[in-house]
Amino acid sequence: MKQYLKVDEWSIIEESFDPTNHEISESVFSIGNGFMGQRANFEEQYSGSSLQGSYMAGVYYPDKTRVGWWKNGYPEYFAKVLNSTNWIGINVFVDGTALDLAQCQVKDFVRELNMKEGYLARRFTAVLADGKELAVDALRFVSIARHEIGAIRYSVTPLNFSGEIRFVPYLDGDVKNKDSNYEEKFWLEVEKAAGADLSHLTLKTKKLDFHVTSVMAYDVVKNGQRLELSPALTEKEKYVASEVVVSAAQGEEVTLYKYVANVTSRNHGLGELVEAGTKALLEAKQAGFDQLLGEQANAWAEKWKESDIIVDGDASAQQAIRFNIFQLNQTYSGEDDRLNIGPKGFTGEKYGGSTYWDTEAYCVPFYLSTAESDIARNLLIYRYKQLEKAKENAKKLGFSKGALYPMVTMNGEECHNEWEITFEEIHRNGAIAYAIFNYVNYTGDKSYLGQYGLEVLVEISRFWEERVNFSATKGKYVMLGVTGPNEYENNVNNNWYTNRIASWTMEYTLEVLNYLKTNENSHYTALIDKLQLKDEEVKKWQDVIENMYYPYDEERGVFLQQDGFLDKELIAVKDLAPENLPINQNWSWDRILRSCFIKQADVLQGLYFLGDRYDLETKKRNFDFYEPMTVHESSLSPCLHAILACELGYQEKAYEMYLRTARLDLDNYNNDTEDGCHITSMAGTWMSIVQGFGGLRVQNNELVLRPFIPSHWKSFSFKAMFRGARLKVNVTEDSIIVVNETDSPAAVRIYDQSYTVGGNAEIKAERMSVTM
Amino acid sequence: MKQYLKVDEWSIIEESFDPTNHEISESVFSIGNGFMGQRANFEEQYSGSSLQGSYMAGVYYPDKTRVGWWKNGYPEYFAKVLNSTNWIGINVFVDGTALDLAQCQVKDFVRELNMKEGYLARRFTAVLADGKELAVDALRFVSIARHEIGAIRYSVTPLNFSGEIRFVPYLDGDVKNKDSNYEEKFWLEVEKAAGADLSHLTLKTKKLDFHVTSVMAYDVVKNGQRLELSPALTEKEKYVASEVVVSAAQGEEVTLYKYVANVTSRNHGLGELVEAGTKALLEAKQAGFDQLLGEQANAWAEKWKESDIIVDGDASAQQAIRFNIFQLNQTYSGEDDRLNIGPKGFTGEKYGGSTYWDTEAYCVPFYLSTAESDIARNLLIYRYKQLEKAKENAKKLGFSKGALYPMVTMNGEECHNEWEITFEEIHRNGAIAYAIFNYVNYTGDKSYLGQYGLEVLVEISRFWEERVNFSATKGKYVMLGVTGPNEYENNVNNNWYTNRIASWTMEYTLEVLNYLKTNENSHYTALIDKLQLKDEEVKKWQDVIENMYYPYDEERGVFLQQDGFLDKELIAVKDLAPENLPINQNWSWDRILRSCFIKQADVLQGLYFLGDRYDLETKKRNFDFYEPMTVHESSLSPCLHAILACELGYQEKAYEMYLRTARLDLDNYNNDTEDGCHITSMAGTWMSIVQGFGGLRVQNNELVLRPFIPSHWKSFSFKAMFRGARLKVNVTEDSIIVVNETDSPAAVRIYDQSYTVGGNAEIKAERMSVTM
Repeated sequence: MKQYLKVDEWSIIEESFDPTNHEISESVFSIGNGFMGQRANFEEQYSGSSLQGSYMAGVYYPDKTRVGWWKNGYPEYFAKVLNSTNWIGINVFVDGTALDLAQCQVKDFVRELNMKEGYLARRFTAVLADGKELAVDALRFVSIARHEIGAIRYSVTPLNFSGEIRFVPYLDGDVKNKDSNYEEKFWLEVEKAAGADLSHLTLKTKKLDFHVTSVMAYDVVKNGQRLELSPALTEKEKYVASEVVVSAAQGEEVTLYKYVANVTSRNHGLGELVEAGTKALLEAKQAGFDQLLGEQANAWAEKWKESDIIVDGDASAQQAIRFNIFQLNQTYSGEDDRLNIGPKGFTGEKYGGSTYWDTEAYCVPFYLSTAESDIARNLLIYRYKQLEKAKENAKKLGFSKGALYPMVTMNGEECHNEWEITFEEIHRNGAIAYAIFNYVNYTGDKSYLGQYGLEVLVEISRFWEERVNFSATKGKYVMLGVTGPNEYENNVNNNWYTNRIASWTMEYTLEVLNYLKTNENSHYTALIDKLQLKDEEVKKWQDVIENMYYPYDEERGVFLQQDGFLDKELIAVKDLAPENLPINQNWSWDRILRSCFIKQADVLQGLYFLGDRYDLETKKRNFDFYEPMTVHESSLSPCLHAILACELGYQEKAYEMYLRTARLDLDNYNNDTEDGCHITSMAGTWMSIVQGFGGLRVQNNELVLRPFIPSHWKSFSFKAMFRGARLKVNVTEDSIIVVNETDSPAAVRIYDQSYTVGGNAEIKAERMSVTM
Repeated sequence: MKQYLKVDEWSIIEESFDPTNHEISESVFSIGNGFMGQRANFEEQYSGSSLQGSYMAGVYYPDKTRVGWWKNGYPEYFAKVLNSTNWIGINVFVDGTALDLAQCQVKDFVRELNMKEGYLARRFTAVLADGKELAVDALRFVSIARHEIGAIRYSVTPLNFSGEIRFVPYLDGDVKNKDSNYEEKFWLEVEKAAGADLSHLTLKTKKLDFHVTSVMAYDVVKNGQRLELSPALTEKEKYVASEVVVSAAQGEEVTLYKYVANVTSRNHGLGELVEAGTKALLEAKQAGFDQLLGEQANAWAEKWKESDIIVDGDASAQQAIRFNIFQLNQTYSGEDDRLNIGPKGFTGEKYGGSTYWDTEAYCVPFYLSTAESDIARNLLIYRYKQLEKAKENAKKLGFSKGALYPMVTMNGEECHNEWEITFEEIHRNGAIAYAIFNYVNYTGDKSYLGQYGLEVLVEISRFWEERVNFSATKGKYVMLGVTGPNEYENNVNNNWYTNRIASWTMEYTLEVLNYLKTNENSHYTALIDKLQLKDEEVKKWQDVIENMYYPYDEERGVFLQQDGFLDKELIAVKDLAPENLPINQNWSWDRILRSCFIKQADVLQGLYFLGDRYDLETKKRNFDFYEPMTVHESSLSPCLHAILACELGYQEKAYEMYLRTARLDLDNYNNDTEDGCHITSMAGTWMSIVQGFGGLRVQNNELVLRPFIPSHWKSFSFKAMFRGARLKVNVTEDSIIVVNETDSPAAVRIYDQSYTVGGNAEIKAERMSVTM
């Protein structure tokens, strides 16, 4: 764990340059706008250790699967987040010597990720080998307002000399993925031109034919004057550059403004890329850097209005939660229903793919509460659009009907290749069904059910129907050979969570069928016809719902994670010698599997999802049984436990759980931030505060709040979008104030008292202590 | 399945050249002598599809592990059987045109593997593009009598022309493994010299520093006269060649004799390789080809004396069983206790490694009955010598004591990398313990126990002791997270076989401890001290033996393969639509796992090993329950079922099972013979006949025979070495004749009647039908 970043409420700040932290910072200081993202690589050349990353949302590479031993059914490829053209590059030479922070002395280095306004800035003084000192001040952003535009301001000031500054802004497509399975480069050049005014470079992927065109232009300004320069142009394989030389007197600042448009064949016709990129670029350049930066600040102000959390009395927590909200908003804007949220967002390559069940379990709740409902809706439609692929996937695995959504995907096809995950971690299907319930319950948008939801629900129910089998011994339906959310168990029988979410899916599907039959009858009839839904299927679901087997320990009154769980030696994590932890780094896989130790919420995940169906006593018994055996070695684990601990009044435990992910990346807890930030976990931290400390739920069309406040905090407030209203909830030791920042009234329940908060009105309630 | 080989009692014969069969034939016609092996690649260049394979026993490469997703505990490397210098090569040019069977017309092609005398021969007429026809007659072998020597006779006769024949005998070390994980070549050149009389080439492996030197010499003979020729010499990277040109008149045969010595740093000092190779080569060359071939025939005659099986009335069965015995004897000679038996022997690269539990479960019984006892003993000592590595392996996996032998190994280190196999298929430890019992029971050589056996048994018992845990729920010791012999179940709890073999190991260890205490007391005391064996360990084993949990179905009276087996849908294989089979090619892994279908004997493996402890009724109930669900998709499965079926009097089933592996490679049942032959399965076929049809067991120091004869056979006979005697057992419809071919008397029981068969005497008994 490295803590080298300065605490600040609105910025992430690194105050000196340590190359050993650089790759971590490259992740943490990443910028993105939901359409492209960029690690905090330096503009100028850097010969030190670096993970270069320029990512275009939805542009991926189907890298040939690499396994030790092939299993039937494995996918042919693993979709890689694709490192694309390096568009930020500006090499700088001072009287012929390259500026390279690995090759010179660096003083007064400050790197800042300004989250309030959405930019990355960097200032430093470089002392070159020959003693020349120059100050550099660089700032860049990718525009929220103009999705295809990135802009950089790069200023150099000679401090103790006068000399020639040579700038080489370039586009370099000769890049590779660090995680390429066979050390292959994934791009081919299509066309390029280096020009005095504009340069461009078009690449295409070796497979799938994604085209990306980058167009760049730049201005050089000295003393407030744009210089007229005659650049030298370079064209090489997958590379274009322009080169200008400017003389700068001591103390005289020279600034290069680089504007780039990155456009892709996802959004433009193949023949129109250069034209589209050029048009976007020229518009941006004409607006100018300052206007673009102003647009950016305005766009971010809007985002913060919807999603900010304020923590009073804990600046470190304040910084952390804003960082998480910032990164989530950088990763997904919800405007394109073909996109989703990769585990590393635009901050690294690791895990490839773009979509895990993280989206439904963690990200949907975040976007439901912090953005207009169409944003979460688009995340759901993404899965709807991939229903045919999910049906193909089920067929491929031998099912006669139904849909199995993939564990990891880019376009709906499975691309993960561990049998115990790919084939067996099928509970993901349940989370996708649950997200439909969650969305409709939260937003009240029942139109979604007939329009999209039912089809997905029916196909998932069909999958569950075929995936269970009737056990003659148990006289019940069982589900054999699954991996539950706790991935520290593989190929188990009757994982309680999976059995439960499967039968819940069927129940909800039947409920939705009834709703549509009653309320949208003609639509209902058309859907039944489209789905070819048969009466016997519905009857079978009813039978499975009524006769599903749930492992249960009568003595303890707890649901059993799976068959045979009680044959294990039950040991508390606190009784393990510390050198065993984390067990995933210290134990062989078999030892982990046969131990009782739990990676992340499993039974408790079910008690969270289906919270309304279980009383507090049941939740308490299960929490008390499982949490002590949970090692929380998934970054997605602590948040669920924080939420349940809040519900149970375990305030210290809740805060402890919250702390375990709050600053995961900022403090590099897991020693892996250099690979990228844990984007989807960030939604979990948000959940810890809003659903945990805030106690936010939606029940019976009311926004329910049951807040408590960590003893370390003076007060905290969060925003909650709810059915057209935007509420600001402020929690102090004594009171809860809900301010409606919009004109729409909102139905709110605080503890057990219902209110209607009128447009632009506020209500205040006394804070109660929540215990069992 | 391809059946293109001619049935012959002593030879494998291919009568025309079909390039699509060539790689299969390259496997089937492989030759070896336990120290080196050679696929049936052509001597002359061949531009068609071919898997080149020249293997030196014990010379391997630790190829960097390739996995999709790394699990803690995986080994760093997978040991590859190493394709070494191509020493057979003799390129042939006819008036400048290369002889290449992919580039000319081939007539009258015959390839013969002569198993009686141990050589590979090939004759054909080639019609070159220019119409020239030449006859080729080639014969080669690797010498049983001189382990380092290979010899080739290669004759060419112009049939319709007179012209110049150019021979280029060479040594080529620029070879690669087809299964290299990262397309790497594994060899580096050390030194070489091409000379008029001798050429040599020394290579070393990039890792582990194995050195292999090949030395070659040759003679060219025409009209019975050795020609004095001035060769042109070539030296290239990892390549030496000599080139001679001979004029040949129409009808005039020119013969090249190539002699090669292959010596390795396993048997010679690094500085002595060239000298040692040269010495061995010169001795061989001086002896001359005909003498070497004579030695070979004599050596094979000795092997056949010990191991031949004669089937009267079924030439196809006769050929098949001889082929299996021949390949087993080619693979392992038992003279070097550092060697073992790879699944493909010297016939291909697949599966790498050299040692699986196949050795103990299948090969030890074969060598016990067909060779002097020191051969099987050496297989056991191989494991004894690797005990320290097995202890390290257990430590690496988190055990505080004990030994876990690897799943796949070359030098004692684990090199397999599938968690469900590597970490969980731990029953292999039981087979290694069982082999000690089996050896001592068969040979009566109790000296082995104190000398080697006990240490292995104690360390394995210690492993089992720590691997079980006490289940508070069951009040029994359980073993969680294992994979049994049936690899179509992974990570199951309480695999009956594993639990049983574990407690059996402890029982046997205690028995051996008692034996040594009584009979070799001072040795016993020294061993207890060496092993630091504590009383509480012995007590714990006793406790585990008494309180081990065995899943059992009271209703059916069958042992359950593992916990939860009865939750499955129990379906007979015969009720599966044929397009599902083999399920390992048609079903995804999860579907296989949750099905009831069994890859190979599991509960039945235990009933076979511990056959004396279970009555026929128990065996029958379990056989009747499991066999119908068994798909036999391991080549090691049918033999066990054949043996048990014989015991149960299921004669048709026994013969059906026998047929499933008898001609596995000759008829290429599994469409994979091109990868190499299934060497260890061949021992299973031998077992089907000798232990199955012959009913051979060793009980109470008697060789027990309970034969039956398949209705398709007139009679069959097999050899059985037993405590100094060599017995020939002849079984007909009516009688059993046991001929003692040695001077030592032998205690034999036929059905329930005991006999002593005097030296060089014979006994005859009436054949009885064996039914329950």
